[in-house]
Amino acid sequence: SRILSGTELSKVIRTRIAAKVQAAGGTPGLAVVQVGAREDSNVYIRMKRKAAENVGFKFVHVHLSGTVTQSEVLSEIAALNNDRSISGVLVQLPLPSHLNEKTVTESVHHSKDVDGFTSTNVGLLMKGDLKSTFVSCTPKGCLALLQENNLPIAGKVAVVLGRSNIVGRPIASLLEKHNATVILCHSKTANLTSIIGMADILIAAIGKPGFVTGDMLKPGCVVLDVGINSVADATRKSGSRLVGDVNFDSCKTVASAITPVPGGVGPMTVAMLLENTLEAYNRGVRPQGGDWKLMPTPLKKLDPVPSDIAIAEVAVQKPVLSLAEEVGLDRSEVLPYGMGLAKIDNSAVLERLQSQKNGKYVCVTGINPTPLGEGKSTTAIGLVQALGAHLQKNAFACIRQPSMGPTFGIKGGAAGGGYSQVVPMVDFNLHLTGDIHAISLATNLVAAAIDARILHESTQTDTALFNRLVPEHKGVRSFNDIQLRRLRKLGITQSLPAELSESERARFARLSINASTITWRRVVDVNDRFLREITIGESATEKGLTRKTGYDIAVASELMAILALSNNLSDLKTRVSKAVFASSVDGDPLTLDDLGITGAVTVLMKDTLMPTLMQTLEGTPAFVHGGPFANIAHGNSSIIADKMALKLVGEDGYVVTEAGFGADIGMEKFFNIKCRASGDIPNCVVLVTTVRALKMHGGGPNVVAGKKLPSAYTSEDLDLVKLGSSNLARHIESANKFGVPVVVAINRFTSDTTREVELIREIAISAGARGAVEADHWKEGGAGAVELAQQVVEACKLESDFKVLYELEQPIEAKIETIVKEIYGGSGIEISPLAASRIEDYTRQGFGNLPICMAKTHLSLSADPTAKGRPEGFVIPIRDVRLSAGANFLYPLCGTMSTMPGLPTRPCYYDIDLDPVTGKISGMM
Amino acid sequence: SRILSGTELSKVIRTRIAAKVQAAGGTPGLAVVQVGAREDSNVYIRMKRKAAENVGFKFVHVHLSGTVTQSEVLSEIAALNNDRSISGVLVQLPLPSHLNEKTVTESVHHSKDVDGFTSTNVGLLMKGDLKSTFVSCTPKGCLALLQENNLPIAGKVAVVLGRSNIVGRPIASLLEKHNATVILCHSKTANLTSIIGMADILIAAIGKPGFVTGDMLKPGCVVLDVGINSVADATRKSGSRLVGDVNFDSCKTVASAITPVPGGVGPMTVAMLLENTLEAYNRGVRPQGGDWKLMPTPLKKLDPVPSDIAIAEVAVQKPVLSLAEEVGLDRSEVLPYGMGLAKIDNSAVLERLQSQKNGKYVCVTGINPTPLGEGKSTTAIGLVQALGAHLQKNAFACIRQPSMGPTFGIKGGAAGGGYSQVVPMVDFNLHLTGDIHAISLATNLVAAAIDARILHESTQTDTALFNRLVPEHKGVRSFNDIQLRRLRKLGITQSLPAELSESERARFARLSINASTITWRRVVDVNDRFLREITIGESATEKGLTRKTGYDIAVASELMAILALSNNLSDLKTRVSKAVFASSVDGDPLTLDDLGITGAVTVLMKDTLMPTLMQTLEGTPAFVHGGPFANIAHGNSSIIADKMALKLVGEDGYVVTEAGFGADIGMEKFFNIKCRASGDIPNCVVLVTTVRALKMHGGGPNVVAGKKLPSAYTSEDLDLVKLGSSNLARHIESANKFGVPVVVAINRFTSDTTREVELIREIAISAGARGAVEADHWKEGGAGAVELAQQVVEACKLESDFKVLYELEQPIEAKIETIVKEIYGGSGIEISPLAASRIEDYTRQGFGNLPICMAKTHLSLSADPTAKGRPEGFVIPIRDVRLSAGANFLYPLCGTMSTMPGLPTRPCYYDIDLDPVTGKISGMM
Repeated sequence: SRILSGTELSKVIRTRIAAKVQAAGGTPGLAVVQVGAREDSNVYIRMKRKAAENVGFKFVHVHLSGTVTQSEVLSEIAALNNDRSISGVLVQLPLPSHLNEKTVTESVHHSKDVDGFTSTNVGLLMKGDLKSTFVSCTPKGCLALLQENNLPIAGKVAVVLGRSNIVGRPIASLLEKHNATVILCHSKTANLTSIIGMADILIAAIGKPGFVTGDMLKPGCVVLDVGINSVADATRKSGSRLVGDVNFDSCKTVASAITPVPGGVGPMTVAMLLENTLEAYNRGVRPQGGDWKLMPTPLKKLDPVPSDIAIAEVAVQKPVLSLAEEVGLDRSEVLPYGMGLAKIDNSAVLERLQSQKNGKYVCVTGINPTPLGEGKSTTAIGLVQALGAHLQKNAFACIRQPSMGPTFGIKGGAAGGGYSQVVPMVDFNLHLTGDIHAISLATNLVAAAIDARILHESTQTDTALFNRLVPEHKGVRSFNDIQLRRLRKLGITQSLPAELSESERARFARLSINASTITWRRVVDVNDRFLREITIGESATEKGLTRKTGYDIAVASELMAILALSNNLSDLKTRVSKAVFASSVDGDPLTLDDLGITGAVTVLMKDTLMPTLMQTLEGTPAFVHGGPFANIAHGNSSIIADKMALKLVGEDGYVVTEAGFGADIGMEKFFNIKCRASGDIPNCVVLVTTVRALKMHGGGPNVVAGKKLPSAYTSEDLDLVKLGSSNLARHIESANKFGVPVVVAINRFTSDTTREVELIREIAISAGARGAVEADHWKEGGAGAVELAQQVVEACKLESDFKVLYELEQPIEAKIETIVKEIYGGSGIEISPLAASRIEDYTRQGFGNLPICMAKTHLSLSADPTAKGRPEGFVIPIRDVRLSAGANFLYPLCGTMSTMPGLPTRPCYYDIDLDPVTGKISGMM
Repeated sequence: SRILSGTELSKVIRTRIAAKVQAAGGTPGLAVVQVGAREDSNVYIRMKRKAAENVGFKFVHVHLSGTVTQSEVLSEIAALNNDRSISGVLVQLPLPSHLNEKTVTESVHHSKDVDGFTSTNVGLLMKGDLKSTFVSCTPKGCLALLQENNLPIAGKVAVVLGRSNIVGRPIASLLEKHNATVILCHSKTANLTSIIGMADILIAAIGKPGFVTGDMLKPGCVVLDVGINSVADATRKSGSRLVGDVNFDSCKTVASAITPVPGGVGPMTVAMLLENTLEAYNRGVRPQGGDWKLMPTPLKKLDPVPSDIAIAEVAVQKPVLSLAEEVGLDRSEVLPYGMGLAKIDNSAVLERLQSQKNGKYVCVTGINPTPLGEGKSTTAIGLVQALGAHLQKNAFACIRQPSMGPTFGIKGGAAGGGYSQVVPMVDFNLHLTGDIHAISLATNLVAAAIDARILHESTQTDTALFNRLVPEHKGVRSFNDIQLRRLRKLGITQSLPAELSESERARFARLSINASTITWRRVVDVNDRFLREITIGESATEKGLTRKTGYDIAVASELMAILALSNNLSDLKTRVSKAVFASSVDGDPLTLDDLGITGAVTVLMKDTLMPTLMQTLEGTPAFVHGGPFANIAHGNSSIIADKMALKLVGEDGYVVTEAGFGADIGMEKFFNIKCRASGDIPNCVVLVTTVRALKMHGGGPNVVAGKKLPSAYTSEDLDLVKLGSSNLARHIESANKFGVPVVVAINRFTSDTTREVELIREIAISAGARGAVEADHWKEGGAGAVELAQQVVEACKLESDFKVLYELEQPIEAKIETIVKEIYGGSGIEISPLAASRIEDYTRQGFGNLPICMAKTHLSLSADPTAKGRPEGFVIPIRDVRLSAGANFLYPLCGTMSTMPGLPTRPCYYDIDLDPVTGKISGMM
């Protein structure tokens, strides 16, 4: 009969695996967890290592002491489950008796369970889902011996002797899946000999040497011998030899094919382990971007549209872990914060997807708005809902985290509106995942450090100060890293305290802060108007060092701008170190690094770099991250979230982000500051307008929040619309100057007429828009923005011709003038003496080549909020110029910018309540 | 032959189940998820409902529309998986074709999968783990028909016709587990008739009417007919009748037993579904407290002991979800915050365990310390490590969340020390889960509201103010709940704005805050000394309403004391509403409710009520929750965490909590304020002392942080120890006055001598301590505190005789005097004129019957920090008395209490750093 050689076949299979590994390019990893040091286990593991390394796998031997606790074993396995470089994990059995073998083997994640021992994999095998399971190695080896030797299985009677969970049961199940009629025999089976006689295929796995003899067999049957028994043999040196459960000599003449022992099933086992590991690797190949399985959530719309919180409250929300999985995030990249929110590990995602091409990058901006706002956020969210839930595109929204000031103050929430919202809405408008808190605390720590430093310098001699800053530790003084950086900045090359001269010590120890130049203010995320201007240090303990200063709303902190503009943690830390908080009495800029606080600020902000994953009402993903104040900073969400989203959506996907204020401010900064810092190329601008706002620009009466809208806004008036559309046209022209196509979104209100809308469309197209379309996402969700989404898709097909508006090397005045003339349509700038002296100082200090972040009203193209439409010939006054050295921009002030809102007589907080029994929150929005 | 009636048997089984349900007392819940409205499904579900309700189950029919998305179905199932009242969940099949049946059925948690369809349950069945799996209902029904009719299975040949995943495969596996020799036949089986002829037991499940005929059978075999086929029958009204896969008439004469169709296997299915549901209920009965499976983490100790952060960094940490499971928390009660932290749902845990008896309650306190501290936190953590990891007791530590001020200021971290620490240490010392941030923001929102209110009242007429506070909405003005509460407080009974008189409107609208009486200060979690005294409102926008005020460190906020003393959310909200921030010009107390801000503060603090779960270095659990400032508040961790821990550990478990400062302050407040508010009974006090501190109390030289310790402290000096032990004795006596036994823990230092330790032991015992023992947990972890733990266990066996020290009805002065005489050992009090007038005011305002929270130095029993040992005859000066109406205590000030620490010349932040490449943090502690 044929001798079925496992030795030979396994060689063929191993060669095949090695070739596949080479072709794949990556390296499958196999980890074996061993507890204790049984000699037989050592031998098996050496064998596995050799085999794995020979085919090009990485092999990891996790060797734990025999006294290790179960908890430690489980935590090692958990680490391997989460280790991206490991495809397969197996636990070398047997385990010491103090460990629970079931618990330990079940803890291997089924997707890495290359031994096929977990209940999930066993269940999948039994149910016939062979593509999802891993079959344990010995059964799989038996099957391979049959299949690779072209021995038929279907319709044959297969008798399996022995019902262990490792061999008998799974092989019976596996042969049944290959259409054998299987009889599983065991110690309780009656008439065993006659059943064996029925077998076309006989699998012996009962651990009884030579149990099956030739006379039992049906002539021509196929015999696979799984038994490995050691029997005494005086003829061998070792005194024993290995035999199977089958009496080979008597059977080989009856059977048509038979496996020998050794050299039969045995060698197949390791080959199958390698095959399972390769399979696990192939299944687990890290997904590239774009590999989504998004399941949109259908809206249950009501008419009339209920309040935002009423809609949000009944919204069906996917668990955030499901959403993360749907958009191709790996479990290890997701840090849940409760049930509805998760921070996503930026460095892990960007490292995994580094070779992924970006998706399309869409910026939603608007014309100069009325004080009521024209629905930019709502449009951005409606647009992604349309792209993701209606056009089946991968689409990510990237939006800002709102300040809590407005939540309790005058405006209410900021999660979109109507049927275009981000949920969970309450968390969105409260603490979210704590980023603003971390930024507030870091900002205030720096402020406290500045004033404490002034106090300490004013009350101590040079020597005392130096000795305290560089204290003795076990009799030795030494500088730490941040102090060495300060020495180098001061041009001092020595590195040992003793080597410094008296005057070098003084220069090192004294920052000599010019208190009148301190620009670093404390912050709080509350609308606290009484903190706008304050005097601090009035306690006697501060020795009369009182100082005028004030608080800003937290999002106005430079640290928030730094977060939003950082590309990664190193970038963040460098920016923090460079942030300037004041000048010295000699006029030199003083940085957070000089203060010795860079590391502490970075530690406080470490988790803020991870964007928060949320979802729209239609179940599409949104990153919420960063929210720098649009009044004095750049008002855009974070670079990191956009970068992650651009990779995650894949090349054919869409990332929709929103720029604060009107296009003259938000969009200009998005291009000139944010895209310049990120290097990412925008593909399309969506310019949001309303009939109402255009009428206002056309000369309609004043619009005041809380007052009834004048009738001009609720009945057709084509003249007002036509006049006001000059504002729209200006912004379209501006966007085109950056080489980016524009789609105008006319955010629909009930009272708008078809003729008004049509007129706007015509004007927009003739001004250079690629498209212009009405959108009704507030009422209809994504369904109301499908046409808008289609036009965005079309616009994104154009080759991007993006360019920034000015070069950094130009003088500060020239850069400001370029923005004023090209974007605002003004005739020039008028620089105040204060601003002129600042420009001179900053240029001298080396900050001349920074981008410009204009601080101007958003209600007009000019600096005069009452100048509507498309004013011409105006001059922009530059009252002051300030520096954000860490954020890396200069911000000219064109008027008085409030950095701290106030509370009205009846603030939002009056209506916010929580029922302590049901936990239900009311009154938000 | 015997007719095996499923109709009869299922009745018997259902009656049995009904009896068991009644006996169990609880109500198993069965949920069926149906998508669409197939008529056959409707019929089956009605049948299941009737059967379930008849045996006393709750039945939930989740009926989703046929157009529902997969995501919605999954989210419904997820909700049922998490629903404690539901034991079993099944999905009614078939599903509409747009849904993935596999994904949907697999989403049922295997512990509720009473259909037995999930891979996990199928795998467990195949592996023979019948105690853990659920067997699907038809196979289980077949088995019951055999077993309950006493038909033998073991050793029989069982032939199964048909290999569906619902019947054939599982019945084959099940019969094999019951020791039949099973032949699983299917469409590819050859010689089917002859195989059928081998059957002792035949299961027919192939969907072919009358396929099996009598001539095929082995005489005397048992036939179970699973088939249900509709065949034409002109004799029936309906034109058809149901038949099985077996030709009943021809078979019944050959078989020894046979099931009819209908009335055979069919009726068994629903009975088995009920049995599985009851089984799921019994397995899932909500664990009571004490049912732990803790797996301690062994320490890998080094000598010498490395720095705290070095130890914490290499510590083996269990995933927080594993720890939660080990201590009997339900997954639905755990909200993970990243990998190492989780908030635990207080209301869910306390509701689930409401009938659980409390464990033993141990308070760790100390003698009056040196400025270096005597290791109270470290002892508390070492003690739980000893109890939990060495004495195998259920033991929970409940500790305070530290302020971030010290982390970056002068003291460093607070997570214990050496080998007795709580991890993850970096998170512990930073933001943790954001509670202090939430409290800070809520405190500052109230402060902003107070000043804004003063401004609005000062600039508006009564009418304008009233109209703004009660604005028109669609033409109608109405009061909201919080405004109605203010009306009632003012004695105004009307509920409609129009019904109020002019003067009532004015009284309602004007709080008339007396600015000089405002006690509510802003807070920040930074050591910012320049904010101790400040002037606010200096911007012109605030119209000259400047005011002197100041900032406290965040943990000094009354909201922190409220959090720590609240028993639940309702309690918290009530306390918030009652907090007094100032008096009106008429001298009436003004509350947060008057300000209209109770709801907003509660919403901001809603998540702070959930304690954060962490772990010790030895893997035992710790709650971190609350951290009221010990200087002016009660300095104890939260009541809620203690309550949860007392339930979770079970009756034989231990909860170890720590009271801030020395026993004269921390312990006294623990008893008189915290235990009074919670109603929980303490069982034991652990009083921590060191040889060093006793020597100081005996007259040893000054101990100054950062300076070398004088030699008296590092060499034996029995006289100093003996003299100083008077301080220890005083605290022992104090604890005994509360009826609580004391164990003294002598926290070991290397230079301590055996004779010194022995002397302390003797003095302690003679002063009334139940035990006194050396502990070396800093160096040895729990192993160093085993003897201490044993003595605590012994002390807790005593019947608690706990009583508070004073009754609330006593006059304020009397209560203060009781504390001074009984606890401090002073001769009396001296009340300043200011304090006297406050006492008068508070008594008049109705706050006379509050507990007393003394604000006194912790460095001496007296108010003089230099008076060491056991001073006598001293008088305690009461400089001022203040009110925390929400926290519900009065706090007399015995000296100048700093509520805002400062930064030193070289603060901790100087050394804190983060490597942006590795993410490694250095320099903390």
